[in-house]
Amino acid sequence: MSTEPALMTLTEVARAIAMKQVSSHEVTSALLQRIAQWQPHLNAFMSIESEAALKAADAADAELAKGEVRGPLHGVPLAHKDMYYDAGKIATCGSLIRRDFVATTTSTALQRLKDAGQIRLGTLHLAEFAYGPTGHNAHYGPVRNPWNVAHITGGSSSGSGSSVAARLTYAALGSDTGGSIRMPAHFCGVTGLKTTWGRVSRAGAMPLSQSLDTVGPLARTAEDCALLLALMAGPDPLDSTASHEPLSDYVAATKGSLKGLKLGVPASFYVDDLDAEGARVLDETIAVLKREGADIVTVELPDQRQLSSASQLVLAAEAAAFHKRWMIERPQDYSPQVLMRLQNGLAVPAITYLEAMRWRGPALAAHNAATAGVDAVIAPASPVPAPTIEESDVGGGPNAPALLQRLTLFTRPVNYLGLPSLTVPSGFTKSGLPIGMQLIGRSFDEATLLTIGAAFQRATDYHDRIPKLPS
Amino acid sequence: MSTEPALMTLTEVARAIAMKQVSSHEVTSALLQRIAQWQPHLNAFMSIESEAALKAADAADAELAKGEVRGPLHGVPLAHKDMYYDAGKIATCGSLIRRDFVATTTSTALQRLKDAGQIRLGTLHLAEFAYGPTGHNAHYGPVRNPWNVAHITGGSSSGSGSSVAARLTYAALGSDTGGSIRMPAHFCGVTGLKTTWGRVSRAGAMPLSQSLDTVGPLARTAEDCALLLALMAGPDPLDSTASHEPLSDYVAATKGSLKGLKLGVPASFYVDDLDAEGARVLDETIAVLKREGADIVTVELPDQRQLSSASQLVLAAEAAAFHKRWMIERPQDYSPQVLMRLQNGLAVPAITYLEAMRWRGPALAAHNAATAGVDAVIAPASPVPAPTIEESDVGGGPNAPALLQRLTLFTRPVNYLGLPSLTVPSGFTKSGLPIGMQLIGRSFDEATLLTIGAAFQRATDYHDRIPKLPS
Repeated sequence: MSTEPALMTLTEVARAIAMKQVSSHEVTSALLQRIAQWQPHLNAFMSIESEAALKAADAADAELAKGEVRGPLHGVPLAHKDMYYDAGKIATCGSLIRRDFVATTTSTALQRLKDAGQIRLGTLHLAEFAYGPTGHNAHYGPVRNPWNVAHITGGSSSGSGSSVAARLTYAALGSDTGGSIRMPAHFCGVTGLKTTWGRVSRAGAMPLSQSLDTVGPLARTAEDCALLLALMAGPDPLDSTASHEPLSDYVAATKGSLKGLKLGVPASFYVDDLDAEGARVLDETIAVLKREGADIVTVELPDQRQLSSASQLVLAAEAAAFHKRWMIERPQDYSPQVLMRLQNGLAVPAITYLEAMRWRGPALAAHNAATAGVDAVIAPASPVPAPTIEESDVGGGPNAPALLQRLTLFTRPVNYLGLPSLTVPSGFTKSGLPIGMQLIGRSFDEATLLTIGAAFQRATDYHDRIPKLPS
Repeated sequence: MSTEPALMTLTEVARAIAMKQVSSHEVTSALLQRIAQWQPHLNAFMSIESEAALKAADAADAELAKGEVRGPLHGVPLAHKDMYYDAGKIATCGSLIRRDFVATTTSTALQRLKDAGQIRLGTLHLAEFAYGPTGHNAHYGPVRNPWNVAHITGGSSSGSGSSVAARLTYAALGSDTGGSIRMPAHFCGVTGLKTTWGRVSRAGAMPLSQSLDTVGPLARTAEDCALLLALMAGPDPLDSTASHEPLSDYVAATKGSLKGLKLGVPASFYVDDLDAEGARVLDETIAVLKREGADIVTVELPDQRQLSSASQLVLAAEAAAFHKRWMIERPQDYSPQVLMRLQNGLAVPAITYLEAMRWRGPALAAHNAATAGVDAVIAPASPVPAPTIEESDVGGGPNAPALLQRLTLFTRPVNYLGLPSLTVPSGFTKSGLPIGMQLIGRSFDEATLLTIGAAFQRATDYHDRIPKLPS
């Protein structure tokens, strides 16, 4: 455990504040100092609210002095993807259209973290309307990867991945519709939890695709993700799709062992399309998990490309429906790339959309049959480590579109099936870029993923490595 | 109470069989005799299974003799709309395409009635794939109205309305997607309950439009509808849309009084578009309900035509998605009318469909606000009594399309909102055709509708009148 406040994990700093080993003011100051150093290099924050954060920290310290504890996050400063509405505050959603949009409600996920005592540090960058896989943003500039600022962070939760990796916030809410939590976690070397569809309320979170959108945390460790999930999960009168499925003790799950767990490695697709360094890290990850007691088996999954296509179709149609009025009234205020993605959705016939939706049940049943008896599937989060900002940009040359498509190849099938997936830092390339592995679980069984992730992190230190400030 | 078995209500005959006042065999024979007389005039049955029914009746009598009682419908012969799958039996769905379709599962609604002891009498006619409002069927001929065989029954539960009115079955399952239970109830002078969307499982019932389809009974009385609803309602592992909302004691609800209930009469739309005889019956119905103790108020409902349009759009898209493969492979096996309706659905863009679906929540909220404090809304089931088969047929002249559209004007808004609605026989035209009134209730509050319907039926005898066999 680090004694430098900014380098602690969320779990550690929350405990240290509660035990009065460090004040919320000290912690907040330490983060603000790092943010001041890193922000010019990363562009991870959309807004930095130093004064308000320090004031809130002082108030939290005063409460604590009087023995008043709001909850498990008392006095912990956090920043989140700028699409979680916070009443009275601007939520840009990474867009020009909502540059001045002042939220009138607070998202349920955020409200639950506020109720637990978190302090608002500012807001984090994201792809325009959360609709982009790289971290580019035509309006606000690209977010940069702290491991190498010439490289992308992945998107759409670009600021979340970048800021957690650089230790500018202890954790950050992301959202995952096609990989938007798992890709930044993979590219930036942090832990990211895509929750089961329906596990966390989406009320007050900007919608992209209601059938695919999920809310989840990016943090340094599986333990930290568990702490946040425990605070956020469960039904919500404001979101009828927030499930009543029983919750688990997610934090307790992180203490569990891998003994007796059976993990499946896909026989194809995720291993076929993988580059050499990804293949090496996958092998090493499997070796660690085996050594820690897990039973490793091969699984033959149904055609993942079909799942990916179906998810893109659903996303395109639902996003276009949500954006229709703005597409008519303010087309010039979208970046050409996002407008084009949205326009693709206009062309989807209702019957095609309905077929894609109807195929979901059978596809999930086929997945469950193929993974029967397996506690989680291990797969790389993306076939490649972070490409450069330049090569994946609009003007990135003839290979850019294929590259973009490839980035999300391994994440989209999970969104279509609605399953939970935890991405954990699992290695580095020779050039020093992080590589993450996905643990894909059973519906509403985040607990098992957190058990595996935490056990893996007790046996490895990839999540503990810290990027160096560029000179 | 009639002592002639075929003329008893469902509640009466079930009790009489249970008390051994009449045998299942006698009851079944009596119905089969009436069916033999009426079927040539009505074309209400798709199949009449005399031998099997009598055999089942004998078995039921034998069980009863040994003190074995299956449930509240022990030995009661019933026939249902031929779209409720019954494993091993043909379910034509009123179509040529499924003329020889042998079901491999049994629908949950039907299974629950079978578990309660019902006997299968045969199956009832319906519009082709339940997609038609009149009772015409290009493949199997029109079903005829027992009050005047030159007139339609309404659809799509045409055989259900016709056979219950003529006392050929004590009750019949119908399905209501745009009025398919309420219109036949209105045109044929029987009681029909469109349930809240999600109240009764649709598993094993032929889908037409998953967002609008509801399962419900047509019977002679509200009390009989309550008995059937009590048997069928509630969650079902085979249908995730079957709601866990608490159930009521529906049968007990039929004993309640109107005192203290507040009923709303729409200030417009339902009264504007009504013909003179319908207006008279509405006034008479209100007078009866007032006399029985109900408080009558005027309600200003939101635009009902918008609700109707949205429901037709959703229906067209969902029906087309379900039928797509057959439309490609076997277009010649549809009637031109049904194929045309289905083809309209091909043209709906996904964004338009999604907008119509997204508007549902706000539309229901607006309805609930407009009817706050009101226990049910009274409205005619249709602007007109049954037109003739000829004038509403394909070759019915230039006014036929407008007439067809008008028939469902008062029923479609309720499907869009997902609300329950009970149609009760409320009067007759001078020429002897029945007129029914709808009681539109709050979500999942079928009980209040059944209270009102039963109280109305204790004060009136429209539901007791019996059509005469044509000479």
